[in-house]
Amino acid sequence: MVNGYLETYNKLIESAKREFENKEYEKVSIRNIASGANLTIGALYQHFKNKEDLYDCIVSPICDGFISITNDRNKDFIDSLERDEFSIISEELSYITNDLLKYIYDNWKIFRILILNDKTKIYKTFFNTIVENETKMTQLMIEKKNISQYEHLTFKKLKSLISAQYQGIFALMRTEDDIKNLDNDLHLLFDFFRYGWIGVLGI
Amino acid sequence: MVNGYLETYNKLIESAKREFENKEYEKVSIRNIASGANLTIGALYQHFKNKEDLYDCIVSPICDGFISITNDRNKDFIDSLERDEFSIISEELSYITNDLLKYIYDNWKIFRILILNDKTKIYKTFFNTIVENETKMTQLMIEKKNISQYEHLTFKKLKSLISAQYQGIFALMRTEDDIKNLDNDLHLLFDFFRYGWIGVLGI
Repeated sequence: MVNGYLETYNKLIESAKREFENKEYEKVSIRNIASGANLTIGALYQHFKNKEDLYDCIVSPICDGFISITNDRNKDFIDSLERDEFSIISEELSYITNDLLKYIYDNWKIFRILILNDKTKIYKTFFNTIVENETKMTQLMIEKKNISQYEHLTFKKLKSLISAQYQGIFALMRTEDDIKNLDNDLHLLFDFFRYGWIGVLGI
Repeated sequence: MVNGYLETYNKLIESAKREFENKEYEKVSIRNIASGANLTIGALYQHFKNKEDLYDCIVSPICDGFISITNDRNKDFIDSLERDEFSIISEELSYITNDLLKYIYDNWKIFRILILNDKTKIYKTFFNTIVENETKMTQLMIEKKNISQYEHLTFKKLKSLISAQYQGIFALMRTEDDIKNLDNDLHLLFDFFRYGWIGVLGI
């Protein structure tokens, strides 16, 4: 009985992934998800409230995983700030980028479902969380490094810069499905942003 | 008779602008646009095929105006490349940015309707056109300046960089309705990108 329940649940999740991979959120239908799992709509509603619920069940583990990595890495980053060596800070930043990229590539199909549907509530929360976290880290770095000439960079201003940066990164990820090509283009974009930060922060 | 026709047309356009200013594209209703102009839906359909047609009539003059400025300015830019003086090129680039910003601010309400609805066909065409134009210009600049160490920057790569840049700019424009605040944040973002280009292109 319990096995049957889980089996049905998994069938529905797999069918929903296939639907969301190939269609925009608005065009995904509950009916197709059910029939793709050889189940009735009634059976689907025993497991999920609605389309949004199904979508959240698919993408939320990836959002949580991503944010958990940034939180862990941010702790290391704060440590490296304490040690106050620029080479360590810069190394730490490239570790964080590589870790996050690896996580994204390992979960590419689901991550793409997430970023392709940027009008969903869960995407907006995810986007805002990572931007806020990175803004806090950047502000902390400015304080610790005592970069007083950058006092004009308020939280709001830093946030708008970091938000623009992620918009650019995710937009690029939306245009390219092939990870190899994407990785190539992303590294150019990261270089571009790195030079931007060097110029704006003087670091 | 002709006056009546134009008057009705203008009433509908004004009512549609009010609707699109305050609602997402999907939530704008033909019914509300008609009633906002004190007209019947039947009268509306004598002027416009559907919602998309109305939307296009509102935003396409702004798209055309923007692209026409970039085309004019690009000609000046090519001239400045011929003269081969870096100070002129750099001055020219900041003229172009200022001209385009002025145009956007002068048409802010409509421009915002355009960028807030990034799933529409006309937005996608507009976005692609400006990105392609700027990519061509950048490639031309690289060729003319004989920056041979940047041969790895193919059209596709440059385009992905420029696309990310515009995604960031328009995303920032979506978050801030007040032009004064926006202008402040935008200049920081432009500085950031300028440093990025200096780093990536060595200019």
